[in-house]
Amino acid sequence: MRPVDIIGVGITNFGKHIETSLVELGGRVAIEAVKDAGIKPSQVNAGFFANMQAASIFTDFTVGQNVLWQAGINRVPVFNTENACTSGSSAFNLAWMGVASGMYDIAIVVGAEKLVVPNLGLMQAGSTELDTLEGLVVPNAFAMRANLHMATYGTTKEQLAMVAVKNRRHAALNPLAQFRTPITVEEVLNAPMIADPLTRLSCCPNADGAAAVILCASEYSTRYTTKPVRVAASVLVTGSYENPCNMAQWDADKRASGIAYEMAGIGPQDLNVVECHDAFTISEIVHYEGIGLCPEGEGGRLVESGATSLGGKIPVNPSGGLLSKGHPVAATAVAQIVEGVRQLRGEAGACQVEGAKVFMAECMGADKAGDVKTCTVNILQN
Amino acid sequence: MRPVDIIGVGITNFGKHIETSLVELGGRVAIEAVKDAGIKPSQVNAGFFANMQAASIFTDFTVGQNVLWQAGINRVPVFNTENACTSGSSAFNLAWMGVASGMYDIAIVVGAEKLVVPNLGLMQAGSTELDTLEGLVVPNAFAMRANLHMATYGTTKEQLAMVAVKNRRHAALNPLAQFRTPITVEEVLNAPMIADPLTRLSCCPNADGAAAVILCASEYSTRYTTKPVRVAASVLVTGSYENPCNMAQWDADKRASGIAYEMAGIGPQDLNVVECHDAFTISEIVHYEGIGLCPEGEGGRLVESGATSLGGKIPVNPSGGLLSKGHPVAATAVAQIVEGVRQLRGEAGACQVEGAKVFMAECMGADKAGDVKTCTVNILQN
Repeated sequence: MRPVDIIGVGITNFGKHIETSLVELGGRVAIEAVKDAGIKPSQVNAGFFANMQAASIFTDFTVGQNVLWQAGINRVPVFNTENACTSGSSAFNLAWMGVASGMYDIAIVVGAEKLVVPNLGLMQAGSTELDTLEGLVVPNAFAMRANLHMATYGTTKEQLAMVAVKNRRHAALNPLAQFRTPITVEEVLNAPMIADPLTRLSCCPNADGAAAVILCASEYSTRYTTKPVRVAASVLVTGSYENPCNMAQWDADKRASGIAYEMAGIGPQDLNVVECHDAFTISEIVHYEGIGLCPEGEGGRLVESGATSLGGKIPVNPSGGLLSKGHPVAATAVAQIVEGVRQLRGEAGACQVEGAKVFMAECMGADKAGDVKTCTVNILQN
Repeated sequence: MRPVDIIGVGITNFGKHIETSLVELGGRVAIEAVKDAGIKPSQVNAGFFANMQAASIFTDFTVGQNVLWQAGINRVPVFNTENACTSGSSAFNLAWMGVASGMYDIAIVVGAEKLVVPNLGLMQAGSTELDTLEGLVVPNAFAMRANLHMATYGTTKEQLAMVAVKNRRHAALNPLAQFRTPITVEEVLNAPMIADPLTRLSCCPNADGAAAVILCASEYSTRYTTKPVRVAASVLVTGSYENPCNMAQWDADKRASGIAYEMAGIGPQDLNVVECHDAFTISEIVHYEGIGLCPEGEGGRLVESGATSLGGKIPVNPSGGLLSKGHPVAATAVAQIVEGVRQLRGEAGACQVEGAKVFMAECMGADKAGDVKTCTVNILQN
């Protein structure tokens, strides 16, 4: 396997795109990424498109071909991929494998999602499953995790809320984020209850959005850009489904990040900036522990210390995270990588982590019971 | 890229599986393939699952993880792939790349589909597209192709019907096929009209079904089996969307098979047996021409000559094809490969092509307008 760089990125704002179709959203970021990479569309050897909800909401299929055609990319292999919240990073992992293997020199990854429609779909994900029919939808499953984490490790409701407050503070600096007005711990705690202890401000909002990256064999990347960003590790694992397990810890995070650290030849202490999958406030805290930013059970105290704020020791979700940007499912994990590229290029604007050299994107796809179906960890390096 | 073999296969009958869930169908073939390969589930390094309709019919997502867990395969990377009728062969192409690249030593591919439900979904595929709303659903698009082929090349309705008759004659020999009672040209012509000139017997029926294959780096395959089957070529291309184009020819077939022949170092004259995507009778005739079994426009006369019947010069769809087996979308292209493995192992029973050494599986995914979104060609060799 040969080294691979990211040479171009594209992203929309996350929010309501009522007048824009899924194909247009995806096409827009594909065009932007091709332009950013300084390549011609005909130089792209393969396309990997990620989407989760188009089939169930719009009965649309094989969307990636239409999306890439908008950018002048056709005839070459195009794959449509779905892997829950890691749909985008799964497409990225496949594209990385394609380029690293020598099969393709240049590949594009596009993640796009339209969620802001009357028939949402997400809350009924897996309606054939008994646990969902009985009420175990996603927020409930994460609320149970939060309660267990509080009971086991002494994490407080205030610490949970601090995740939302921190990420909103970051989002205020990101013009592409959906919600940018700063909030307080009290506001989070007093927001309408969704599933105790998770209030509305503890849960990520819906959004439409799209993001794209272009991967290139490192041996060719400087032909196109003066700022290639190296993919130091790309890892995808599946949940273990093992019982008994500790529902307040994520084994998949530990396995995926462990493999990624080994691939990159680094450890958690070497990270300068992280984007992780903060679908709920509790998620970010458990991810801290899973990827090794702090010992098991210390996640609540880590956010309280300020270490994961911009200006802290290891800023997490400088973009504002899912909690403030929203969660256009298949765009989310690609957007994390776009943020990483901007950080390592020094182009992250007011969200910039000074001198960032090593970035991690963590994303996880869980079912309603909180079982982890997929987990991805990508490390980028300058 | 290193050589890759198929070391195990699994398949269900195609037809109504009312009492069996999608996950059970997929799990069943995964278990069968693992057993057939003589490996332990824990030796599988990655899983590639293909499905098209579960999200729109059942609002199910990330199904592959559940399917493979049935077979004791978890923790390793699992990817869910959709690419219309080539969903299964797209998953196969990715798995092949994964093993050929050295990323994985052993990978499993499962294609599974449940279609036999009241809310079909297929006829409304892409309901946000104007052409579909105006009535250009799949059978209409293929009827237009058939009319153009007849007008351009002198193909007759009787020749179209002969495709259905031949494939039903083959299906009578295949215990896994859905419809096995022989039919006549007159019966095909006199069946209820769907879209002139295509009658009900000219269109593939729906079905539930699943199929699986296990890929292994050739350097290790003889550890597990005495009958490895080599993947001589695996190719996926996307339609060109170019205008003006000849709607009675498939450029994607020509490009994909051309690349595949070059990879395998053979030509169409070297093929012993073919499975191709006979969603409609006209499809098989155009595929003959696209993959080079005969010159452009000669497909109707080729089937009439008997060359593509079992016992003929180059038998096509010895399994009975989609026209007799049915078309459980994402299972179809994997099932083609399973048939190829059985042919090259000499285990195809009454459908066996004597001494078969070189097999091609061709599959195509088209949208309602008959534009080709994806086309796959896989060549297997003994």
